[in-house]
Amino acid sequence: MEKRKLETCFSPALFEADCHTDSIVVIIDVLRASSAICTAFANGATSIIPVSAIEEAKIYKSKGYLVAAERDGFILDFADFGNSPFNFTKEKVQGKTIVYSTTNGTSLINLTRASYMTVIGSFLNLGALTKWLIKQNRNVLLVCAGWKNRFNIEDTVCAGAIAEILMDSSVFLTACDSTIASIDLWKLASPDLPGYIDKAAQRSRLRDKNLDDCIEFCLTPDFTDKIPLMKNGVLILE
Amino acid sequence: MEKRKLETCFSPALFEADCHTDSIVVIIDVLRASSAICTAFANGATSIIPVSAIEEAKIYKSKGYLVAAERDGFILDFADFGNSPFNFTKEKVQGKTIVYSTTNGTSLINLTRASYMTVIGSFLNLGALTKWLIKQNRNVLLVCAGWKNRFNIEDTVCAGAIAEILMDSSVFLTACDSTIASIDLWKLASPDLPGYIDKAAQRSRLRDKNLDDCIEFCLTPDFTDKIPLMKNGVLILE
Repeated sequence: MEKRKLETCFSPALFEADCHTDSIVVIIDVLRASSAICTAFANGATSIIPVSAIEEAKIYKSKGYLVAAERDGFILDFADFGNSPFNFTKEKVQGKTIVYSTTNGTSLINLTRASYMTVIGSFLNLGALTKWLIKQNRNVLLVCAGWKNRFNIEDTVCAGAIAEILMDSSVFLTACDSTIASIDLWKLASPDLPGYIDKAAQRSRLRDKNLDDCIEFCLTPDFTDKIPLMKNGVLILE
Repeated sequence: MEKRKLETCFSPALFEADCHTDSIVVIIDVLRASSAICTAFANGATSIIPVSAIEEAKIYKSKGYLVAAERDGFILDFADFGNSPFNFTKEKVQGKTIVYSTTNGTSLINLTRASYMTVIGSFLNLGALTKWLIKQNRNVLLVCAGWKNRFNIEDTVCAGAIAEILMDSSVFLTACDSTIASIDLWKLASPDLPGYIDKAAQRSRLRDKNLDDCIEFCLTPDFTDKIPLMKNGVLILE
């Protein structure tokens, strides 16, 4: 059987649309969008609408949707709650559609347009996601959301964790330096993941705003078996 | 004394011109442009004109310049030699101006326009370059040329080698995840640099074309103390 290709992209700015029209794209934004989305589904949300523009989020709010919206770590005044996974409790989200406003929203939606399918990856759904990816007969591209289009460590290390499991399955091959580097960084980080992520710039940014209470949670493997995927611009469950 | 900023950029596609108008930018293209350029100066070349378009290289050739030009690893028919560092021997280059055609030429020239100064970095001039960078009173940005705008391991590991020395000098600080990751990958690679680079995709590409004879040389630290820098679109010595 021909092996499937596994590639990794360290920033949405490096995404090459033409190369991945037949691939499953995994979006990784550990701190915090991917983790929040996985948590929301774990707690019973039925769908999530990612939006970029604040105005768009406001319009949804006026129509009665639950809206999660932050900019630079601060909850916007019209929103129901912020983007921390801890906001997406069972009491708040079960059976609901949530509008999730994030600066990366547009990139996410554009990636889904250019690929066969886009799914959400995080440490929280690591086991279920990799098991599912191995079963699909598709090439896989891991896209790290990064921070303002820059490389970041937490997304890279999570990509490495996913890539290591996929490569160990023997159904994938990679000739992609980013994948090789991400696996190496994951191996370096995994004995003390919180300690390693502690070095990351995003962590110091979050700590500065006293928003780092969710970091340890975001690094927990296999909190859920849910696999959020994009369909017609909306995140639903696989 | 206020510390200077050290940042790393894994692809010219991630270069943010506005952020680096006052920085010294170090271009790293280990296999093979940076290494060839350092070798040419070590062997007595007086200047190197980097060009992107093949047509431009042809015009220089017709004016009597020595031209090094390849595409995808193959020497172009009108050129004097290819882009391997081994071509830039003392006999050929001493006292000469060389036109060096590379697909990355345009990125290089654009980077120099947007920064305070652009210099060429490789393993070959590691010690001299870092010593010089420590003496300048400037922020430093390391730019990995990558391969077709993608992340690559050999440039990243070289950036890590440079970054480790700069950070050890205590005059720099970094809050940049790329710098942190590149130092970690360098530490991982350094006990067996050729073995580690062997994993890299660029190496397999070069090996496929029987062009890998220069790789070990390109990984040699401190072959020269020359520091090529860009001035008005031409590379000269510091």
